[in-house]
Amino acid sequence: MADFMYFEDFAVGQAIETAPVTVTQAEIIEFAKKYDPQPMHTDPAAAEAITGGLIASGWHTASITMGLMITGRPYEIAPGTLGLGVDSLRWIKPVRPGDALRLKLEVVAVRESERQPDRGIITSRFVTVNQHDEPVQEMLSSAIVPRRAIKE
Amino acid sequence: MADFMYFEDFAVGQAIETAPVTVTQAEIIEFAKKYDPQPMHTDPAAAEAITGGLIASGWHTASITMGLMITGRPYEIAPGTLGLGVDSLRWIKPVRPGDALRLKLEVVAVRESERQPDRGIITSRFVTVNQHDEPVQEMLSSAIVPRRAIKE
Repeated sequence: MADFMYFEDFAVGQAIETAPVTVTQAEIIEFAKKYDPQPMHTDPAAAEAITGGLIASGWHTASITMGLMITGRPYEIAPGTLGLGVDSLRWIKPVRPGDALRLKLEVVAVRESERQPDRGIITSRFVTVNQHDEPVQEMLSSAIVPRRAIKE
Repeated sequence: MADFMYFEDFAVGQAIETAPVTVTQAEIIEFAKKYDPQPMHTDPAAAEAITGGLIASGWHTASITMGLMITGRPYEIAPGTLGLGVDSLRWIKPVRPGDALRLKLEVVAVRESERQPDRGIITSRFVTVNQHDEPVQEMLSSAIVPRRAIKE
């Protein structure tokens, strides 16, 4: 099992790139029926006129991106690590059935927490690209990460 | 059927509040197994030690919020309206099984598109609250919205 990554283990410039995951039409429709029921996401025929065919909900792309991070990173994060939120998220290109998405993740800022001395904040850029290496989503997001406990 | 909302129909200060939707433990686990497989989201027993019990993935809360907007607003948006992305998103409080979430949505900015004179940009604040009226997520997000076609 991989080592846990604590705050001290992160540095600006660290980067990973995951393997791809293919997005199916069935999955696009299933997600959208639950969370984003609009014809461009749920109805291939209606989507033809609106967006030139079915496109994935942006929230589906964001959720797939989260999954790529969790399953694709070559390390485990320390217990207690928590996503704080998103500083910016842009949907750049439509995601269509059959697209193979992968995640390019880079640490862009590392700072101590002012309020919690046993934790720090890591900000990363998440670029989700398709099989043509075109970015489909770009996001800046931060997580609060525990420091290593001081050994007794 | 409700009228379509075009760019001209939006104004700063317009607000809606949706009916609630209850989040189940099964749904939290199902979403997380697919998109955010971490024990605090997928394993009630393990989550006890990490977060005092199971909590929903932040991406699940964001997706539920999208669904509340689509199904809960009292109007239809004009065809061609597209989410541009998120300017900021914060997960403020954990969402736990049995929580009933509703969305308070307010238009905070309306501006013409510089590059596309037939469209404009609407920025809204999305506050997702639980059954105690506590915000669990706050988001600023923008969409590009078509203007009304000029009638011939």
